[in-house]
Amino acid sequence: MKTVITPDYHLMLNTAIQQAQKGLKEGGIPIGAALFSTNGTLLGKGRNRRIQNNDPSLHGETDAFRNAGRQLSYTNTIMVTTLAPCWYCSGLIRQFKIKTVIVGESVNFSDGVDWLKQNGIKVIDLHSEECITMLGNYIRRNPDIWNEDIGEE
Amino acid sequence: MKTVITPDYHLMLNTAIQQAQKGLKEGGIPIGAALFSTNGTLLGKGRNRRIQNNDPSLHGETDAFRNAGRQLSYTNTIMVTTLAPCWYCSGLIRQFKIKTVIVGESVNFSDGVDWLKQNGIKVIDLHSEECITMLGNYIRRNPDIWNEDIGEE
Repeated sequence: MKTVITPDYHLMLNTAIQQAQKGLKEGGIPIGAALFSTNGTLLGKGRNRRIQNNDPSLHGETDAFRNAGRQLSYTNTIMVTTLAPCWYCSGLIRQFKIKTVIVGESVNFSDGVDWLKQNGIKVIDLHSEECITMLGNYIRRNPDIWNEDIGEE
Repeated sequence: MKTVITPDYHLMLNTAIQQAQKGLKEGGIPIGAALFSTNGTLLGKGRNRRIQNNDPSLHGETDAFRNAGRQLSYTNTIMVTTLAPCWYCSGLIRQFKIKTVIVGESVNFSDGVDWLKQNGIKVIDLHSEECITMLGNYIRRNPDIWNEDIGEE
């Protein structure tokens, strides 16, 4: 009998949520992410740092990807993010052949999800009320910063 | 009579080529990019710095985008790059509503071009022999680094 160990996605999401909370405390947009190997090892974690670093290129996923350093392959990695990835981060996931994406929520944003699925990437939505509320509250209070972050005028 | 001044795309491409050449001298992958406003003002320039900075997130386009700093709108910007953008950089262009992309070449890579066009983005290919040769030579000499940069195993 073969025992298949399923990674604990909720535990992985907690790492991303902690990054989002850290970002919020820093005065930033509360979106966090983490890149794990499929065996559960954390490779890198990060958060949206548009405000903190004055850097529009640092979305949660791209910051986690960056902090994971150079990898020869992403086939056996899982991207975990508090919010469904935007087109920029969806493109990253597709280009580097990350096979699984765990999203905390897709209520506040969801544009890339269907495209990722159409391209063979497994997207698992954990429907986290904590993620929905944390970002939803931020967006209501900071609509201009949010629109800047997703390229809306 | 209205005079419409067309930006000089070849002159803009030269800025990106200079970045690629700089990257090559640094020991990096020779791909450069620059973000201009539609009136021709340079907003930011950059180059692939995977090797130099040990940073997989810095493709030419994302480095140029980063160096342009926070912008409230990208509608009136032009992304110029020595190589047609990968999915990661194509996603960036779509998310931030950059309307025009000037590419030096699409021989060494072209995956995102049709998708960008389908999404209403104008892609102009300048078919630069200089760009084709510079990157083509690099890829032949450094196939492993190239595959790492585009997520191929």
